[in-house]
Amino acid sequence: MKKIFSLVAALTFCVASFAQQALWGGSQIVSPEVHEDNTVTFRLLAPDVTTVQVTGDFLPTQKMETPFGTFDGPGTADLTKNEQGVWEYTSDVLAPELYSYTFIVDGVKINDPSNVYMIRDVASVTNVFIIGGDRADLYKVNDVPHGTVARVWYDSPTLGMKRRLTVYTPAGYEDSKDNYPVFYLLHGMGGDEEAWIALGRTAQILDNLIAQGKAVPMIVVMTNGNAAQEAAPGESSLGFQAPSMQQPKTMEGSFELAFPDVINYVDSHYRTIAKKSSRAIAGLSMGGYHSMHISHYYPDKFDYVGLYSAAIMPSNESDCPVYKDIEGQLKTQFVDNTPALYWIAIGNADFLYEANTQYRALLDQKGYKYTYYETGEGHIWKNWRIYLTEFAPLLFK
Amino acid sequence: MKKIFSLVAALTFCVASFAQQALWGGSQIVSPEVHEDNTVTFRLLAPDVTTVQVTGDFLPTQKMETPFGTFDGPGTADLTKNEQGVWEYTSDVLAPELYSYTFIVDGVKINDPSNVYMIRDVASVTNVFIIGGDRADLYKVNDVPHGTVARVWYDSPTLGMKRRLTVYTPAGYEDSKDNYPVFYLLHGMGGDEEAWIALGRTAQILDNLIAQGKAVPMIVVMTNGNAAQEAAPGESSLGFQAPSMQQPKTMEGSFELAFPDVINYVDSHYRTIAKKSSRAIAGLSMGGYHSMHISHYYPDKFDYVGLYSAAIMPSNESDCPVYKDIEGQLKTQFVDNTPALYWIAIGNADFLYEANTQYRALLDQKGYKYTYYETGEGHIWKNWRIYLTEFAPLLFK
Repeated sequence: MKKIFSLVAALTFCVASFAQQALWGGSQIVSPEVHEDNTVTFRLLAPDVTTVQVTGDFLPTQKMETPFGTFDGPGTADLTKNEQGVWEYTSDVLAPELYSYTFIVDGVKINDPSNVYMIRDVASVTNVFIIGGDRADLYKVNDVPHGTVARVWYDSPTLGMKRRLTVYTPAGYEDSKDNYPVFYLLHGMGGDEEAWIALGRTAQILDNLIAQGKAVPMIVVMTNGNAAQEAAPGESSLGFQAPSMQQPKTMEGSFELAFPDVINYVDSHYRTIAKKSSRAIAGLSMGGYHSMHISHYYPDKFDYVGLYSAAIMPSNESDCPVYKDIEGQLKTQFVDNTPALYWIAIGNADFLYEANTQYRALLDQKGYKYTYYETGEGHIWKNWRIYLTEFAPLLFK
Repeated sequence: MKKIFSLVAALTFCVASFAQQALWGGSQIVSPEVHEDNTVTFRLLAPDVTTVQVTGDFLPTQKMETPFGTFDGPGTADLTKNEQGVWEYTSDVLAPELYSYTFIVDGVKINDPSNVYMIRDVASVTNVFIIGGDRADLYKVNDVPHGTVARVWYDSPTLGMKRRLTVYTPAGYEDSKDNYPVFYLLHGMGGDEEAWIALGRTAQILDNLIAQGKAVPMIVVMTNGNAAQEAAPGESSLGFQAPSMQQPKTMEGSFELAFPDVINYVDSHYRTIAKKSSRAIAGLSMGGYHSMHISHYYPDKFDYVGLYSAAIMPSNESDCPVYKDIEGQLKTQFVDNTPALYWIAIGNADFLYEANTQYRALLDQKGYKYTYYETGEGHIWKNWRIYLTEFAPLLFK
């Protein structure tokens, strides 16, 4: 028998398998290398190129000129080449955070071939790394009980299609007989049902907050807010299409109107506490706009509402009932169905800051109670992760 | 009220949001462009570089010299630059298949910045595209009912840790009261519980085969076969470590011995038909080795066994009982617990071809019945996807 099993030496197996299976192999370069002192070294083996830069949100922002005005863009830094043809740059000491970056090689933006960790944000894929400590430890997978993350398809009779959801159920859900509260978490323009679980680190944040006793165990349902779309790019029968910021049927009422289809699916397929006091809705940017409108159009559904950098803006061109008599709807929501928590958060450099300020002025004028949370910076995932870590502990208590 | 909602024009929102949120934006170049005739054009905007090549499994293989011998490696083709600084190459007519590729820019391997679709294979991330037709239509998301894909954590008392599984439940599972058969599907060396769902296209293949009535609805459980590892790289508390081909405790019996922990979890958390006739196990390469050993060590557990390019090789250094008296164990499996199907598949250019031939000779000599399926080519995902599409329809009938 030994003869049968000894034809191939283990070493040969490893090498040949690597050559045939993984095809192009990984680089031997370590990049990024996070040092003890929270500086980070980036490396790229590229002996034959002229310039290598790194760009990302770990660098100070720099002004970016566009035809539509000047915006803060990510900074860049130059790498320098050593004798082995390895380009290298070491950052300053970085604050705890999940950071994104890409290299620019002779003008071409490329991913770091030594770092397999990448996250798509709409039509861009960038490498990521985490500097631990403080709040950023919530973004890590830690040695705590983990929830389940499922991609499920629900029926939306209102939209006339099956659509994809990302659903987080907390650790212990499968072994419990309890019913759980549900938090509906909505993405921004160009995003989809993958956005919050990927860049938002929802599973890690909830696992950690629940393990620390800071949030109650809850189900988190991440929807696709583009009402014409069945699923995230690549996950529907449209195939491997290029993702686009501009989707039809995103801010004209269809998604908001059809939201009970999601709630019905979740309440009939998960052990939920199917009542207002155990239901929350929040979203970033367009998802904040959706959360505002869904919560006033269905005022008896949600006791917790979160507007993260919400896109407070006109919806003039739609005659959808969701947008009719918004002041009347808000009165019904705030006076007759007073939410336990109406939470508005925005960065003070956000281009939607002024619009949110005026929306708060309206609420103030009417005497409608809300909680306001302001951070620095603008319309960025760093802020939305912060808002999730602040908002989730306030729910269902 | 209109005043409140009209501060920000929609256009400004789109542009500014793009600038702030998606940060680096997508390229405007279309690549890859799959034409009607199944040729494919690859493009890269890179006015300031000297050479651009594309390499991938859509090109004829070329010999690759390594210190361990000569192997077939992926071919390369040169792109040519137009006046706008866009490099371009159009392929020959390609056969239906899921293909992987990368660019090589002045010697640096990079992902295509115009293509967000990438799949990790161990330590490498490559872009992918699909040429439809024939069997490759099974690899696409089609307009058919979709199953649920969940990442769940199970308890393995034998290995002393919580470990991660990828579980596919077929369309209709949630709305049914039926019990389902279970197919355990195992990855190769360097892989993990993400391999089959990503490069293997398991969810798409099963969705399509079930919709066509070619496979019965079944649960597919994709395990992590590295017994020292809790989860795929990036999904455990080890953080964003570089993936490695060489993991401890992969082929020394620990994973095989602990396999009942997986079965116990699945049978107690899903509506399964918990008996031999409704249980299958198969794996590729190291996963084929695992499937062979698990199925003879637990001979009353699986009626269907699939060895895909199985790593038939010695396990001399382990004194694990899984590897003791293998001939005796095979006799118990084949004579006393005769499997309904013992299926061996391999490519005729696989470096494990000879080892599999000798294993079959042993089975022949003993009179143990098996089914043999031979393809061309070697130790590659193309073959493993083919084997899955051939094997799944044979199960539980």
